[in-house]
Amino acid sequence: MRRVIKGGTIITADRSYEADIAVENGVIAEIGPDLKGDEVLDASGCYVMPGGIDPHVHLQMPFMGTFSADDFESGTRAALAGGTTMVVDFCLPDPQQAPLDALAIWDAKARGACADYSYHMAVTWWGETMFDQMQAVTRRGINTFKHFLAYKGALMVNDEELFASFRRCAELGSTALVHAENGDVVAAMQEKLLSEGLTGPEGHALSRPPEVEGEATNRAIMLADMAGVPLYVVHTSCEQAHEAIRRARQKGMRVYGEPLIQHLVLDGSEYRHENWDHAAQRVMSPPFRDKRHQDSLWAGLQAGSLQVVATDHCAFTIEQKRFGLNDFTRIPNGTGGLEDRMPVLWTEGVNTGRLTPNEFVAVTSTNIAKILNCYPQKGAILPGSDADIVVWDPEKSATITPERQQSVVEYNVFEGREVKGLPRYTLARGEVAVEDGAIRATPGHGRFVGRPPMGPV
Amino acid sequence: MRRVIKGGTIITADRSYEADIAVENGVIAEIGPDLKGDEVLDASGCYVMPGGIDPHVHLQMPFMGTFSADDFESGTRAALAGGTTMVVDFCLPDPQQAPLDALAIWDAKARGACADYSYHMAVTWWGETMFDQMQAVTRRGINTFKHFLAYKGALMVNDEELFASFRRCAELGSTALVHAENGDVVAAMQEKLLSEGLTGPEGHALSRPPEVEGEATNRAIMLADMAGVPLYVVHTSCEQAHEAIRRARQKGMRVYGEPLIQHLVLDGSEYRHENWDHAAQRVMSPPFRDKRHQDSLWAGLQAGSLQVVATDHCAFTIEQKRFGLNDFTRIPNGTGGLEDRMPVLWTEGVNTGRLTPNEFVAVTSTNIAKILNCYPQKGAILPGSDADIVVWDPEKSATITPERQQSVVEYNVFEGREVKGLPRYTLARGEVAVEDGAIRATPGHGRFVGRPPMGPV
Amino acid sequence: MRRVIKGGTIITADRSYEADIAVENGVIAEIGPDLKGDEVLDASGCYVMPGGIDPHVHLQMPFMGTFSADDFESGTRAALAGGTTMVVDFCLPDPQQAPLDALAIWDAKARGACADYSYHMAVTWWGETMFDQMQAVTRRGINTFKHFLAYKGALMVNDEELFASFRRCAELGSTALVHAENGDVVAAMQEKLLSEGLTGPEGHALSRPPEVEGEATNRAIMLADMAGVPLYVVHTSCEQAHEAIRRARQKGMRVYGEPLIQHLVLDGSEYRHENWDHAAQRVMSPPFRDKRHQDSLWAGLQAGSLQVVATDHCAFTIEQKRFGLNDFTRIPNGTGGLEDRMPVLWTEGVNTGRLTPNEFVAVTSTNIAKILNCYPQKGAILPGSDADIVVWDPEKSATITPERQQSVVEYNVFEGREVKGLPRYTLARGEVAVEDGAIRATPGHGRFVGRPPMGPV
Amino acid sequence: MRRVIKGGTIITADRSYEADIAVENGVIAEIGPDLKGDEVLDASGCYVMPGGIDPHVHLQMPFMGTFSADDFESGTRAALAGGTTMVVDFCLPDPQQAPLDALAIWDAKARGACADYSYHMAVTWWGETMFDQMQAVTRRGINTFKHFLAYKGALMVNDEELFASFRRCAELGSTALVHAENGDVVAAMQEKLLSEGLTGPEGHALSRPPEVEGEATNRAIMLADMAGVPLYVVHTSCEQAHEAIRRARQKGMRVYGEPLIQHLVLDGSEYRHENWDHAAQRVMSPPFRDKRHQDSLWAGLQAGSLQVVATDHCAFTIEQKRFGLNDFTRIPNGTGGLEDRMPVLWTEGVNTGRLTPNEFVAVTSTNIAKILNCYPQKGAILPGSDADIVVWDPEKSATITPERQQSVVEYNVFEGREVKGLPRYTLARGEVAVEDGAIRATPGHGRFVGRPPMGPV
Ligand SMILES: [Zn+2]
Ligand SMILES: [Zn+2]
Ligand SMILES: [Zn+2]
Ligand SMILES: [Zn+2]
Ligand SMILES: [Zn+2]
Ligand SMILES: [Zn+2]
Ligand SMILES: [Zn+2]
Ligand SMILES: [Zn+2]
Repeated sequence: MRRVIKGGTIITADRSYEADIAVENGVIAEIGPDLKGDEVLDASGCYVMPGGIDPHVHLQMPFMGTFSADDFESGTRAALAGGTTMVVDFCLPDPQQAPLDALAIWDAKARGACADYSYHMAVTWWGETMFDQMQAVTRRGINTFKHFLAYKGALMVNDEELFASFRRCAELGSTALVHAENGDVVAAMQEKLLSEGLTGPEGHALSRPPEVEGEATNRAIMLADMAGVPLYVVHTSCEQAHEAIRRARQKGMRVYGEPLIQHLVLDGSEYRHENWDHAAQRVMSPPFRDKRHQDSLWAGLQAGSLQVVATDHCAFTIEQKRFGLNDFTRIPNGTGGLEDRMPVLWTEGVNTGRLTPNEFVAVTSTNIAKILNCYPQKGAILPGSDADIVVWDPEKSATITPERQQSVVEYNVFEGREVKGLPRYTLARGEVAVEDGAIRATPGHGRFVGRPPMGPV
Repeated sequence: MRRVIKGGTIITADRSYEADIAVENGVIAEIGPDLKGDEVLDASGCYVMPGGIDPHVHLQMPFMGTFSADDFESGTRAALAGGTTMVVDFCLPDPQQAPLDALAIWDAKARGACADYSYHMAVTWWGETMFDQMQAVTRRGINTFKHFLAYKGALMVNDEELFASFRRCAELGSTALVHAENGDVVAAMQEKLLSEGLTGPEGHALSRPPEVEGEATNRAIMLADMAGVPLYVVHTSCEQAHEAIRRARQKGMRVYGEPLIQHLVLDGSEYRHENWDHAAQRVMSPPFRDKRHQDSLWAGLQAGSLQVVATDHCAFTIEQKRFGLNDFTRIPNGTGGLEDRMPVLWTEGVNTGRLTPNEFVAVTSTNIAKILNCYPQKGAILPGSDADIVVWDPEKSATITPERQQSVVEYNVFEGREVKGLPRYTLARGEVAVEDGAIRATPGHGRFVGRPPMGPV
Repeated sequence: MRRVIKGGTIITADRSYEADIAVENGVIAEIGPDLKGDEVLDASGCYVMPGGIDPHVHLQMPFMGTFSADDFESGTRAALAGGTTMVVDFCLPDPQQAPLDALAIWDAKARGACADYSYHMAVTWWGETMFDQMQAVTRRGINTFKHFLAYKGALMVNDEELFASFRRCAELGSTALVHAENGDVVAAMQEKLLSEGLTGPEGHALSRPPEVEGEATNRAIMLADMAGVPLYVVHTSCEQAHEAIRRARQKGMRVYGEPLIQHLVLDGSEYRHENWDHAAQRVMSPPFRDKRHQDSLWAGLQAGSLQVVATDHCAFTIEQKRFGLNDFTRIPNGTGGLEDRMPVLWTEGVNTGRLTPNEFVAVTSTNIAKILNCYPQKGAILPGSDADIVVWDPEKSATITPERQQSVVEYNVFEGREVKGLPRYTLARGEVAVEDGAIRATPGHGRFVGRPPMGPV
Repeated sequence: MRRVIKGGTIITADRSYEADIAVENGVIAEIGPDLKGDEVLDASGCYVMPGGIDPHVHLQMPFMGTFSADDFESGTRAALAGGTTMVVDFCLPDPQQAPLDALAIWDAKARGACADYSYHMAVTWWGETMFDQMQAVTRRGINTFKHFLAYKGALMVNDEELFASFRRCAELGSTALVHAENGDVVAAMQEKLLSEGLTGPEGHALSRPPEVEGEATNRAIMLADMAGVPLYVVHTSCEQAHEAIRRARQKGMRVYGEPLIQHLVLDGSEYRHENWDHAAQRVMSPPFRDKRHQDSLWAGLQAGSLQVVATDHCAFTIEQKRFGLNDFTRIPNGTGGLEDRMPVLWTEGVNTGRLTPNEFVAVTSTNIAKILNCYPQKGAILPGSDADIVVWDPEKSATITPERQQSVVEYNVFEGREVKGLPRYTLARGEVAVEDGAIRATPGHGRFVGRPPMGPV
């Protein structure tokens, strides 16, 4: 079966041009004028772009005896609804659990995925088994290792462990990822605030101010530089962290920064909302920041000192969020966003003139595929690339509302926001998963995307 | 006739892969495995890359009643010998000369070009005719207007004129270029140094220190931002100018910086050489800088705060240079470099690990084509793109020497330097212009490349 | 007659201690415990500090055939009421007027001064007479020369003139001052805004955005560095200018920045006030800025990258402001502030913890006296220093209101603001000019303060 | 007995003037013209300045079962010989040793001091006793607590301990000090280098590059800011650390940086000296850096972003240094400098025009006394101040040589360096300890200088 996307303007990270695309067997078979096929998708008036890649999601993430609410099925369905055709989840070994054992669990969870996916492996503890199996993990096609500088007593590793793992990554030709907040300070601030009787969600933001993120980012950069490993800083939310990244880049260091769509458009005033649920639903780490940090992040995307936009999608239900009713440190950290990333970024980025359509493709897809080393299988409109394609209608608009969303949670942090620019079609490895608002995603259609190491530096 | 480049690894700005390329009628007809053709060029062991584009050359440039020594023929032959398949010259109207009249002269000079070429139009004076004809100039396919902040009493325009021209460029959707040095200070310093009896080439560098370039760069950026025009800063030679550029970019301003290969590898000690000729041959503006400025420029290319590498090729013979024997201000400004840019940058950039091969393609070709708006006709390995291709042999080495160069001048500022990485073949719009060191370029083969405006911001 | 200030805590730029001060013949005769005298001023509960110095005022400034409203008498009376015991005015030669001739006019105007005063000489034009007389001017005790980079067609000098004057200053051992805004851009923006029909006071701010000030500051710094002259940037109002200053200082350049009290506490929303008079009364250059620039200025005072706080006091009546009713470019530029600088800075700086009392003394008095070279005659509590002293009651509060002010204008840009911290006594060269709110200043008591050059660098 | 210093020019941090000084009972009794006394010290042709204060020395420091070679007697004698009249040593409790117990040991060692002294208390471990006794320590007159981020397994504290101690300092109104290098990385690098067979002194520098210091400085700043405590960074040796400090200061944070005279004038090439002893004698932490870091430090002193100059005097004999013959990690860390700091800084700072004489006084004495809170008892030429005075002969010159030095070690890292500018007299609390090269210091004359806390922020 040959499917042709007809009459649109192809937008890639590096150019815009009019052409049709023929898709066969899940890949792009041909690009050119006047293509013919068994089935035609009308792209007139649309931009035809590489499907989005979300480099940072947590689907069915284990948490306090339960799991984050969206699993691989609902999560990837939400992704496709918003034009995102691949997600990268984080495999999180339990303390002392062998990473390959954790991978087996993740593989089982991912069976229901509607879209393609990959994993980052989290180095949640350090020891010989971790050191040894990291090689096998890379051979499995996972070339990115995540490290937590926060979540003391749980996921956090100390500097000695971090440096050892970074050096291991360097040997293996992998890239190191960090969640950069100083966990010691966060823990001490949490204790202080609670002891002062401040238990509400606003305490969450007060316990993790921008300087705490800036410090950890700066520290991770130095350690990565000394270890000789490229560094990818997840959820860069503030000027302090961005400053550390661009200062490093100006020394020639290979460092990447990942703003989230949430931090680009939402701000810290949300935590002072009179409704506890409203505020708690916005609790994530790092927290939303003051508006001036948003300016910094947008400028970073424009200047190239920040490279990608993600969601850290980790959805919790109202009930789950209420675990922290009397103690903000027990509110599960995370918000949704998978369905909203592309329309919100287009609306606030492209429609405002901050980003060109090409830059939009770069930061939502192509740059990610390159950095994570699955380009041009993903992130490209090229013959032979996977047919992960979004046909984007720049005139289509909607108001974000939980009622119509694919995520299983009952609210949306972008609720009420108008977006203009939405998928007409989303193709997942050739399959039409979204057609003008109708979601036809197939659970189990998604496959694991292996990403080999770059080779040691 | 179908010509196939076989067995190489294609390197573009965004990826590396193995494939053959078929060329027909001057364009790329097909890319893929196992292509067949009438003629085969063996690319085994080679990188197949978009031919270089030099965005900044001066061929047969009028000067003190004579001309710079390389004309379009010898200049483009030198370019092809080094893997560069397109050059952009500067059309320089005389005072009060209509720009369209100047263009006619430039067209005549360019007839002998062996490789494709385009022009920037220089706004060397300001007035109604200039304002009016700028529109016709853009319709001719010239979307870049150059402004001199130095060369007082000659090419220099003042801030009022500059701002008026920048606003005109903004209306026309063009990009503004600047030579950024404070001409008032340079003139005063020249006078002071001469009056103190300092007449030798070392005075050239003393009269134009880095702060003088940094100031003018900063000023041009502000004026461009106020006018709403993208700005391209030619020959960014020092940390001060680079700092101004990256500070602007971090505010979201659209500013580009162009280091020259000379400034990346040569330093100011050259002007203190005991041999007057040696020193005078290195006289160009801005002058070579201290080594720490080189670090800044390389880091800028790595971080993306500087985007392209050029030559400002403007060759003068020994005799011409000697016009300034007793007065450094009369030494014609300029050096060669067209043949050397690609091999020297590969040697010092790629072989040292500073740049990846993909980044090499970006800064020598693709970024330039995009910024100057002739991508993907130029700067790309894509079906339909012009077959401007270099088959690059990373194992081929040579020692740079004036004896074997294509430029007509008798010396070379890179003389004695070992390079490793040279063209096996250079194709100019499909024609094999260089074959393993043998130059078969055809005078007159080069055509003008029109570059339409981007549209007003 | 020996007057003793008793029971207070002396606060200088470098320490705080309890002691009495005896004053005789206009100077400080003795400092120590338990002093006796003919008259005692009770300083119990008070801080005894060097009287403020305002380095930047315009009294009876010629303007469009009339004069700014406060003359040396009312201006210095206002100064004393607020604890300021010395002002420095700007002598402004007419075009081609010899500076010594202008000085004679200024001397005549200053006869009514209640407090000591000095002048800066403005280099409002350039030529042989200016060059020659600059030496005589320095011999008259004026070691600071002001230059306007704005006010095109009036006070503005171009880069060539500026550089020539800076070099002359360097020869004479003087310090250069600049009003740093790019006058060419301001003029073009004014014309553009007016032509678009935007004639109200908000156009004033739109025509001189922060980047325009940042550029001119950066340019002046480079020119001063090349000339080898220390540079003092008046009314530094924004992060852009501050950034240029601290970048220069980090290269070891001798550059000073002067925020105004207005820019520290008032912001650009004032120009959007619905009442034309309200907005017009706030028109000054540079205009008030967004709040984030205030943060930058305060941090500069804390870090030492900005050194002094001034007013640029240049008061115009409601009627005078209305010259610009239909054209914002005709609104006379200037606001008052002489009486308010010290109480407002104390309230917003010291009471908020941003500045220590010692730092307050430094930025309102001591640093100024040092930079302008009249320390320790002024700016000090030392035996032999002029008895310019303010006995500051940190518990005394008031609401600023035009009704009770000394300035002759009918409004006050700080109107309605609560201040806490006011003079109990102000002594002008030993004379009690202010006693608990009662003003007893004597017109004509003020004398010229000569400030010799530092000597060439 | 009244001693008069006659005919000199008094230089303080804020002014220069001619006056005599009368000294009685160890304090300054009078300053003025034509003073009379029982004994006259001729200061004609000299600058009369506050004696130097060295805020960072280690005398008779316990080390591997022995002690650093200079004790309080020889150390303070060396200090006086070079014009330094007060030193601040570090009291270093053993693991779990109560700080008051350690203080008793330090008091015993200090009995032989020829000049006044104070201590910083090092928080070498963390626990309840430390927490509790910190208050008693401040009551003893020690308001500065030192923390080591390096020396893993020995003096180093981790982030949790550091933050707890910083918060305790904030409560007590004390200032936190840090030795800022990332100890985890240093330890890992040492192990790596040794395992690669690199055992010589050059390994010392390779194991602690500038980024490692920059990171720790940045981290300490964040922790101090979060704790609300002023921070003093000892031995700031590189641009990276300086950048972190000035970035913090530009946010209004109270952070101080202390370059050492060694880092200002010596560079990393010393470690590549062919003579092992030469190289090992220069081993200190942080190590000497490349020349460009020197530029940064000098500019910091000029701009005020760095405030003081110290020595970290910690002298080891040739024999002691040889502990590390086969393992650079066992070379005792430290060099001398107490006698050399003032003459070398004058020679390289004042004689070159980088610093004014007033700035010299500020960075060697007055700023230190203010930051450490013993001003104006120390660091001042004021009536009532301790008569710690140096009569400085700017024409006196010498060549530094170990033969003539007061330190007991057999070498000097400044050996062979010419200095111009040396004490004619040094007065230690009124006693003439140095007279034209003859040292008459009295062991036991030195007294402890108490420094009360500033009070909580
Ligand atoms: Zn995270
Ligand atoms: Zn996450
Ligand atoms: Zn040029
Ligand atoms: Zn040029
Ligand atoms: Zn002004
Ligand atoms: Zn003014
Ligand atoms: Zn140390
Ligand atoms: Zn130490």
